[in-house]
Amino acid sequence: MKALVYQGPGKKALEDRPKPEIKAPGDAIVKIVKTTICGTDLHILKGDVATCAPGRILGHEGVGVIDSVGAGVIAFKPGDRVLISCISACGKCDYCRRGMYSHCTTGGWILGNEIDGTQAEYVRTPHADTSLYPIPAGADEEALVMLSDILPTGFECGVLNGKVAPGSSVAIVGAGPIGLAALLTAQFYSPAEIIMIDLDDGRLGIARQFGATQTVNSTDGKAAEAVKALTGGIGVDTAIEAVGIPATFLICEDIVAPGGVIANIGVHGVKVDLHLERLWSQNITITTRLVDTVTTPMLLKTVQSKKIDPTRLITHRFALDQILDAYDTFARAADTNALKVIISA
Amino acid sequence: MKALVYQGPGKKALEDRPKPEIKAPGDAIVKIVKTTICGTDLHILKGDVATCAPGRILGHEGVGVIDSVGAGVIAFKPGDRVLISCISACGKCDYCRRGMYSHCTTGGWILGNEIDGTQAEYVRTPHADTSLYPIPAGADEEALVMLSDILPTGFECGVLNGKVAPGSSVAIVGAGPIGLAALLTAQFYSPAEIIMIDLDDGRLGIARQFGATQTVNSTDGKAAEAVKALTGGIGVDTAIEAVGIPATFLICEDIVAPGGVIANIGVHGVKVDLHLERLWSQNITITTRLVDTVTTPMLLKTVQSKKIDPTRLITHRFALDQILDAYDTFARAADTNALKVIISA
Repeated sequence: MKALVYQGPGKKALEDRPKPEIKAPGDAIVKIVKTTICGTDLHILKGDVATCAPGRILGHEGVGVIDSVGAGVIAFKPGDRVLISCISACGKCDYCRRGMYSHCTTGGWILGNEIDGTQAEYVRTPHADTSLYPIPAGADEEALVMLSDILPTGFECGVLNGKVAPGSSVAIVGAGPIGLAALLTAQFYSPAEIIMIDLDDGRLGIARQFGATQTVNSTDGKAAEAVKALTGGIGVDTAIEAVGIPATFLICEDIVAPGGVIANIGVHGVKVDLHLERLWSQNITITTRLVDTVTTPMLLKTVQSKKIDPTRLITHRFALDQILDAYDTFARAADTNALKVIISA
Repeated sequence: MKALVYQGPGKKALEDRPKPEIKAPGDAIVKIVKTTICGTDLHILKGDVATCAPGRILGHEGVGVIDSVGAGVIAFKPGDRVLISCISACGKCDYCRRGMYSHCTTGGWILGNEIDGTQAEYVRTPHADTSLYPIPAGADEEALVMLSDILPTGFECGVLNGKVAPGSSVAIVGAGPIGLAALLTAQFYSPAEIIMIDLDDGRLGIARQFGATQTVNSTDGKAAEAVKALTGGIGVDTAIEAVGIPATFLICEDIVAPGGVIANIGVHGVKVDLHLERLWSQNITITTRLVDTVTTPMLLKTVQSKKIDPTRLITHRFALDQILDAYDTFARAADTNALKVIISA
């Protein structure tokens, strides 16, 4: 089968690989219908993700059709259409029992990282009963690809951890796909203001189309002052960090109101300065989270009931044999205006 | 009247001052019966607290008797015995309506900081109806002095923010009075383990008497390794920072388990390094808080019902005219083994 393979820092190729086989009773083999590329895949290609070894098939998002299942799988049978969660969960360990699937002791984010992933014609998914979701009849499969990772990540790590609430003020730092996913799902809770902050006016324009009430271009280094001016000098109840660098986290520290929350989504490569010398007394909360995908069933309902349209995040479409072009388009987002790309296998 | 006055960095004196007078309808004048000295008073004396100007009478804790009240005070009358909260709260502003009294727009921590405090024969308390508490008949007034600040601070900023729960694991970094107050109040929630960390074996011995299940002397710089060894390599559900320096906050970052909370109590003078490069994915929460004293009525009930004995924190007693000796004893705690000192006016 065709598969996109990480070959070490800076290198990838579309290779021929053997079709995966059932290895454990809980496994399923899924024939991929649609997949996508995540910003995390670009991190891997830079060599930033130590757990992902050269030779790995990338990809942790997608929808597909069950090809075969292990003897222990009871929720799915061949022919079932399924949504693949980016998080594999055994459902049995202490972390899974707490709903913290991201830290499953035999799962978590392993697809396209510690085991082969979804940017291929087939993928082996461990713990299939508790890591796949049935796709409702008539569902838009491209929309559901956005539910593998990006929507639950923006929602759980940003909106839920950030305690977005009716009438509250929210700022989202970073208007990339993850920031926009947070923007879309924040509106479930009817905040009074959602201020979107980015360096790119094009993305800020999209953010306004997606429901941002205010946008701030942070190129001048004065984003915090602008947000303070927009909030009567107080700052925001929720500051969502959707980039993953010290400068954007610092903006969040500067704009969070007393009693507010900084909800970190960004994948950070280096430490940040935490200004406790002024924040110790401000009754703030800072949260971090690897998405648990506990809200996937809920998000499925919001898509089916048209409370949200995740296809708005999709800008480009490719076939699997064009995946190198897809990577190029996604990586050069500043030029191509790419948000999420759909790859059909 | 006699009063302990801050005279600028490094300087204080017991001065003669005029008895305070009612300035606003919500004020009360309270004749002090017992007061104490807080670590924050030592911070002021070092010149670390910019809001506290030379000439200020220090002190934000105490019990006393109402001497007179303004025309707007309805909850108290002369002769009533009262507990003075370290936090003054109008009860009317947006922050007060949310129970975030520490950020009251005309109150907060102002006593012994922005207005004259309790280390005197009399004190003027603004917003008396919502900043004083009636003392139950027969209550131990020395125990209640611990409810002005130290017990609600340890409880709200450490135990409640830290989500201490039955069966959970807790580490408290710093076995000074605030850390010990967190230790005492953490036991309301029956955690499985409370690991106390400090540089001083004497204080760790007291912590064991107060209910710590394990103690770790961090002098060797290996406290995190020791806590990991005590928790099966996982770390603790709740790490309470009760010192206020980068080294102790870093211990908390190193010992917090996936899904855990770092609850900061410490007053920090400088920034800390936040290692988001490893914590971004760990589903942790970091909280900061200036005590709101929302739990004062609850803590009063725990004292009256003998669920807790705050007098265990009291090591020394002085008269008001010995307050310079009291400061010396409190400041030299490493030599004197002082925890809290009671000053009788």
